[in-house]
Amino acid sequence: MKVCKFGGTSVANAEQIKKVASIVKSDKTRRLVVVSAPGKRFPEDIKVTDLLIDLVNGVIAGVDYQERLEKVVSRFHVNAVDLGLDDTIIEELRRDLNKRIHHNLQISEQYLFDTIKACGEDYSARMIAAYLNKIGVKARYIGPKEAGLIVNEAPSRTMAIDEAYKNLAALKNSEDIVIFPGFFGFTKAGRLRTFDRGGSDITGSILAAAVQADVYENFTDVDCVFTANPKVVNHPSEIQEITYREMRELSYAGFSVFHDEALMPVVKLGIPVHIKNTNNPEAKGTKIVEKRHVNPHAITGISADAGFSILYISKYLMNREIGFGRKLLQILEEEYISYEHTPSGLDDISVIIRSHQLTPEKEERIIKRAYNELHADDVYFRHGFSMVVLVGEGMNNSTGLAARAATAISRTGANIEMINQGSSEVSLAFGILEKYEDTILRSLYEEFFAMAAYAN
Amino acid sequence: MKVCKFGGTSVANAEQIKKVASIVKSDKTRRLVVVSAPGKRFPEDIKVTDLLIDLVNGVIAGVDYQERLEKVVSRFHVNAVDLGLDDTIIEELRRDLNKRIHHNLQISEQYLFDTIKACGEDYSARMIAAYLNKIGVKARYIGPKEAGLIVNEAPSRTMAIDEAYKNLAALKNSEDIVIFPGFFGFTKAGRLRTFDRGGSDITGSILAAAVQADVYENFTDVDCVFTANPKVVNHPSEIQEITYREMRELSYAGFSVFHDEALMPVVKLGIPVHIKNTNNPEAKGTKIVEKRHVNPHAITGISADAGFSILYISKYLMNREIGFGRKLLQILEEEYISYEHTPSGLDDISVIIRSHQLTPEKEERIIKRAYNELHADDVYFRHGFSMVVLVGEGMNNSTGLAARAATAISRTGANIEMINQGSSEVSLAFGILEKYEDTILRSLYEEFFAMAAYAN
Repeated sequence: MKVCKFGGTSVANAEQIKKVASIVKSDKTRRLVVVSAPGKRFPEDIKVTDLLIDLVNGVIAGVDYQERLEKVVSRFHVNAVDLGLDDTIIEELRRDLNKRIHHNLQISEQYLFDTIKACGEDYSARMIAAYLNKIGVKARYIGPKEAGLIVNEAPSRTMAIDEAYKNLAALKNSEDIVIFPGFFGFTKAGRLRTFDRGGSDITGSILAAAVQADVYENFTDVDCVFTANPKVVNHPSEIQEITYREMRELSYAGFSVFHDEALMPVVKLGIPVHIKNTNNPEAKGTKIVEKRHVNPHAITGISADAGFSILYISKYLMNREIGFGRKLLQILEEEYISYEHTPSGLDDISVIIRSHQLTPEKEERIIKRAYNELHADDVYFRHGFSMVVLVGEGMNNSTGLAARAATAISRTGANIEMINQGSSEVSLAFGILEKYEDTILRSLYEEFFAMAAYAN
Repeated sequence: MKVCKFGGTSVANAEQIKKVASIVKSDKTRRLVVVSAPGKRFPEDIKVTDLLIDLVNGVIAGVDYQERLEKVVSRFHVNAVDLGLDDTIIEELRRDLNKRIHHNLQISEQYLFDTIKACGEDYSARMIAAYLNKIGVKARYIGPKEAGLIVNEAPSRTMAIDEAYKNLAALKNSEDIVIFPGFFGFTKAGRLRTFDRGGSDITGSILAAAVQADVYENFTDVDCVFTANPKVVNHPSEIQEITYREMRELSYAGFSVFHDEALMPVVKLGIPVHIKNTNNPEAKGTKIVEKRHVNPHAITGISADAGFSILYISKYLMNREIGFGRKLLQILEEEYISYEHTPSGLDDISVIIRSHQLTPEKEERIIKRAYNELHADDVYFRHGFSMVVLVGEGMNNSTGLAARAATAISRTGANIEMINQGSSEVSLAFGILEKYEDTILRSLYEEFFAMAAYAN
């Protein structure tokens, strides 16, 4: 069986919901459908989730929030009308929303936030279930409470507990198609909690794992994952199949289709993920799989991302000093800084850090501690770097690949500030100045994809 | 003024000592001369220091050690005769050696070891001072005790304390040329302690720093430092000038002319070190300097070394986990393992380690802890790697250099297992399988030196 998840743009209005219905109808194995809250219908539109956040803020501020509430209701109302559903569903929805506000206002702001934010997905699922039944498809709304999607208690980041998977496995036996709202679950005490970013992706992934689906179909608004960022490279070629590891390494940038953590439950069971386009369901899409047939000369994709800083530290005879690297990382940890790479020479080490984690005060403290506690000879930060990452299974066994990549970069006239190869069997990373990022991405694309097209 | 240090082969016999005398005579600014113990005169010969160790072992074992003692005395006796010195010096030497044994036998084995081992340098200095005076050069033996070369107390590694530099500065005012034995100093309590490996180099470096010499001349038995290991590359070109940093990075392998730590005192003051050949003093030698004129396209040297292992660890979402790298390095630290590099992907990290630090038990413990404490998905060791390092000041600003190096390696058909660039401005390191080491070294030499020769 297939678990399908439809993102915000896929359920934004009646026209989109009809596409969803048609996709669900067209394949009998699509038995479990996870839906997001309605997203934007046009670029300037506001997502339902954002309308809901606006509503909660109004409630908490103690202002008259009826207008804000009606904005939410009206988004669903329009869809209901366009889908030919009767008004009762809208009345129920308005009643429920008011009830949630009154009921939860006294408990805690966080609880109120979670409960109201979750309405977008919840109402979306109810409406789609109603529409499917209207057009003769036996479908049923089942929510996290009924299905037993149990999550841990606050304040830890929301995660499904093991028991949830056991409970959700029963969904597999439903005679009707299950329409399930994404984004939230309930604690054992019955408290609603929303997931982090990518919330509906997470729900879909949990359900797919629980029922041990054959595939987890993730419907969004793109045909596929591209080999390079289409905003930089003209018409990059499409990726038909990619491994989890490759997807992870590409998630560096330009490949934000998926939120990494969302994949965890399916990764653990080796369930393939199929990224498809609601607006073009005939397109092949991109399959994310555990293993794939590896072409030893092929790069699967190239990603690039700006916003990196480099912390440089040198000390004579550093490599003789057991514990130096560990002490340095400890200092960073105490500043809550995670790092990407730590290339090193015999007497120096650099730490590649996402710049957004740094402040002038943090930098000053780190520099001071490196001098005082590590007795470093020289310590400084440099900013304005990009990372360009080539990704492909087995690429590190491909003779000459690093040479081709470095040559393609040097053709642009840019200097390579950092190379990191040697751990991942899937990626080769170059650090370069931000200003060269796009040029280098194009040059690498040309080398590994455009030229390959001629060769084939 | 110049501080000169002569190594073991430079003072191995009368013929060599005459060369030393001639070198000292030929330049009035050579005022401070540090000497080693007599080294090998021919490949099967035994160094005096080894004869002394043999002697101590005999003393401690309680066997009749007179024969061993006479072997030491006779090495000096031959030299004294050949240099035309009278027998009194040998009588004194024999008396001193017996006295050291009787006097120190009761104190501690370590003390006895240090005191006897130091005789090689001490007698060598006395004899060379005597010879210089005999040929009309005003020279005077001054030892660490008289000059105040004070070292720290055991059991810490022997190091000169700050006071020693102040004391030794007075040597600059000596009217006679000072002949100083390398390898040892005295604690404040008057106990003799020897330095680590490279002991005479250390003494020379300390003296050069103390008197703020214009140059520290290090006489050995090679003309210069070569751009690559002459045992692998045919007639590699000579390095005339090299910076401390370059020398350090090259010390990886094939460049064991110098013991790194020995350089520390001169590095701190920026005193240049001149490596010269006692047997060919006219040769230009190699100068190790703080800064040099940088040719942006030049590599200064290439070194290669075998005997590396790689510890590989992967874990899904590793890069999100603050503290992962630190915890891993802590485990290694607790096993007393130092590491060379830590290339990383998003979900994996490799640690490059000198294999001699590993045992099957240590590996097993590390693997177990990585699974249990770091909850890694996959952990294993791989062995049999070599590191090839390209070294040159400013090379990391040289566009296309990494491309040329990677291309030269790929021409050999070898795969690049690891690339490390980005911290050191002086080096670019490649990890490769040991079996390719020599071929790759030759290919890189061809690319950066042989071809450059045609180009110039």
